[in-house]
Amino acid sequence: MIRINENYLKLKASYLFSDIAKRVSAYQEANPEKPIIRLGIGDVTEPLPEACQKAFHKAIDDQGTREAFHGYGPEQGYAFLREAIAKNDYQARGADVDASEIFVSDGAKCDSGNIQEIFGSEIKIAVPDPVYPVYVDTNVMAGRTGNNVDGRYEGFVYLDSTPENGYVPSIPDEKVDLIYLCFPNNPTGATATREQLKAWVDYARECEAIILYDAAYVAFIRDESLPQSIYEIEGARDVAIEFRSFSKNAGFTGTRCAYTVVPKALKAQDASGKEHSVHALWNRRHCTKFNGVSYPVQKAAEAVYSEEGATQVKALTDFYLDNAKIVLKSMRELGFDCVGGEDSPYIWINAKRPSWDFFDLLLNEAGVVCTPGAGFGTCGEGHIRISAFNSRAKIEEAMARIKAALA
Amino acid sequence: MIRINENYLKLKASYLFSDIAKRVSAYQEANPEKPIIRLGIGDVTEPLPEACQKAFHKAIDDQGTREAFHGYGPEQGYAFLREAIAKNDYQARGADVDASEIFVSDGAKCDSGNIQEIFGSEIKIAVPDPVYPVYVDTNVMAGRTGNNVDGRYEGFVYLDSTPENGYVPSIPDEKVDLIYLCFPNNPTGATATREQLKAWVDYARECEAIILYDAAYVAFIRDESLPQSIYEIEGARDVAIEFRSFSKNAGFTGTRCAYTVVPKALKAQDASGKEHSVHALWNRRHCTKFNGVSYPVQKAAEAVYSEEGATQVKALTDFYLDNAKIVLKSMRELGFDCVGGEDSPYIWINAKRPSWDFFDLLLNEAGVVCTPGAGFGTCGEGHIRISAFNSRAKIEEAMARIKAALA
Repeated sequence: MIRINENYLKLKASYLFSDIAKRVSAYQEANPEKPIIRLGIGDVTEPLPEACQKAFHKAIDDQGTREAFHGYGPEQGYAFLREAIAKNDYQARGADVDASEIFVSDGAKCDSGNIQEIFGSEIKIAVPDPVYPVYVDTNVMAGRTGNNVDGRYEGFVYLDSTPENGYVPSIPDEKVDLIYLCFPNNPTGATATREQLKAWVDYARECEAIILYDAAYVAFIRDESLPQSIYEIEGARDVAIEFRSFSKNAGFTGTRCAYTVVPKALKAQDASGKEHSVHALWNRRHCTKFNGVSYPVQKAAEAVYSEEGATQVKALTDFYLDNAKIVLKSMRELGFDCVGGEDSPYIWINAKRPSWDFFDLLLNEAGVVCTPGAGFGTCGEGHIRISAFNSRAKIEEAMARIKAALA
Repeated sequence: MIRINENYLKLKASYLFSDIAKRVSAYQEANPEKPIIRLGIGDVTEPLPEACQKAFHKAIDDQGTREAFHGYGPEQGYAFLREAIAKNDYQARGADVDASEIFVSDGAKCDSGNIQEIFGSEIKIAVPDPVYPVYVDTNVMAGRTGNNVDGRYEGFVYLDSTPENGYVPSIPDEKVDLIYLCFPNNPTGATATREQLKAWVDYARECEAIILYDAAYVAFIRDESLPQSIYEIEGARDVAIEFRSFSKNAGFTGTRCAYTVVPKALKAQDASGKEHSVHALWNRRHCTKFNGVSYPVQKAAEAVYSEEGATQVKALTDFYLDNAKIVLKSMRELGFDCVGGEDSPYIWINAKRPSWDFFDLLLNEAGVVCTPGAGFGTCGEGHIRISAFNSRAKIEEAMARIKAALA
């Protein structure tokens, strides 16, 4: 009989969201009259910006006429979108990224999951803890790890994010080949300073490693001293790939558009020591296994860079940031140490007790659902994540309920 | 320095479309006054059905209100679409497929490229020749082959499609684990009868192999004696995965929506001989590396199954089939043996000379661009593919020009 990829058997099943669902439904059954407020999930709640809707509609009208109809587009994305991205997200901030280095896709999850395919099977990988599980699981599936022992896979170098280092992992003592970093971080909301990012770039250059920089939440950065792209750091073009998304700035979680930057300077080598272009490898992967993003969706994404669109995206992210400020202020007033919530839609709260205990407390005493940090890794234990993606009224009510329950 | 996936170095670069482009531009330079007619590419040309446009617009309006807004959807697709697919494409034809066995995606290219990930690295794979290159290249990238020697990769079992077997490959003499089949075929346009497909299903059951059945062109089947789904064949649920797409029936090449059926009965085993659900493995892969198809695109796809949509899709595919008939009749009148063109938008023509010679002849004497069969594999040599995806006027003019040139 045909054999399976046995690496899948190493995957530790995540019961995080099903466990949450079970506890929530048990609570609802016991308290049918108390409506629950969900601050667990990282999904947006507000409508698509009007500029995006308008461009989206217009592109569908294009698809309705023979003359303006678009069939297969370039796998890498249309020039109109790649050029708008390069100009607005990079060149305008002094980061040297060309449109030809941008690969438009249907999600940062896909890209950050697929990117490992172009690298060797024996490479040494560093992953943050707590972590967005996609980085970990896709490498387990590809056979780059041993078994999961006490919540950690053998073979990874784990980058601890703890209260001691302000939730920004320190440079490891050993040499690695591939480094996953995410700022503003999911789940912690922590941001990295220019100096911290510079240290990572210098380390990667020294190791001849590659940094996979997930900047999906960059639109929430308001502190102008913080870098938005890793390419704002000198030397990063030789060592970094950056992932971005329209999900969290323009509310595209259900509309699907993202992009990945692979600089042409980036190299990796074969067993003989010969260097190869990582851009060419990714291009080969992308063109072989992907057929481009929906034309109307790319037109909707392009509208993010119009004057009208930029204003609407700013208002949308400001709205969630104001929510985050309310959460941060409330939790601090209650005496909790928190990170995030200032240049990020997530607030990571040091619960000073097991994360599931605090989860149960908030659920049972306040009817508020958060995400227990332990679900994101061993360093997430003792923490919870609260998401600012909700209406103002619900955020305010949730905080009032938590205050009443804990005060 | 970080190492690359060296399997990528085995990939034979395809110069097919760049070679075509070079010859076309040389011709255009020499004959600036003669407009070229392109019948090479497999991309649709006609507008999106009105029913799809209407549903697409409406879904964008949903995205414009807080109440109807859709963020992340189920990775497997919305129930409204999965249920419409199961009911109309399967249950209505007596094929036992449940909505829960359907995985909606952004393309059959992605799915047929990604599916190999869930299987072991040592499995024996059979691929058609001529072939859609994605089946081959994705397995090369995954390290399941040796080098390319004289146009064929070491390690594959090649299934020859030749004039002798009517372009429907015969069952191999040896045992294999994974079998790629595509009917109506790309590039040949050949279809498989119920008996031929039954023989493949029986063979797969005997080998405990899995058939990957690509039915992307199924909407062009008009002969009611031909099976549309492999699940119309008894026993197929235990041995087959089926890929379908909205690209060629409803003109979604630029809109992007497809789906894959993985029956819950399908099993594969680990090294200890323990059986595992292939559905569960694919679900894990799909949820880890994919975040669902755009909600407005899924609503547009659902409209294919409305009464209005079904009528429009029928008219659209009829239009291309009438084009195909014109091509088929013309080429036969010129004395060529052809396959396809009756239940398929492709006509595969036995050129009785090297495919590039016939390509050059059609280009230089008629100003018509086709695809040389040699680009699809060694058995494609001596053939060309003509695509019916174009306007009626261009198809008619192309045939008139070819007749004048060859008569």
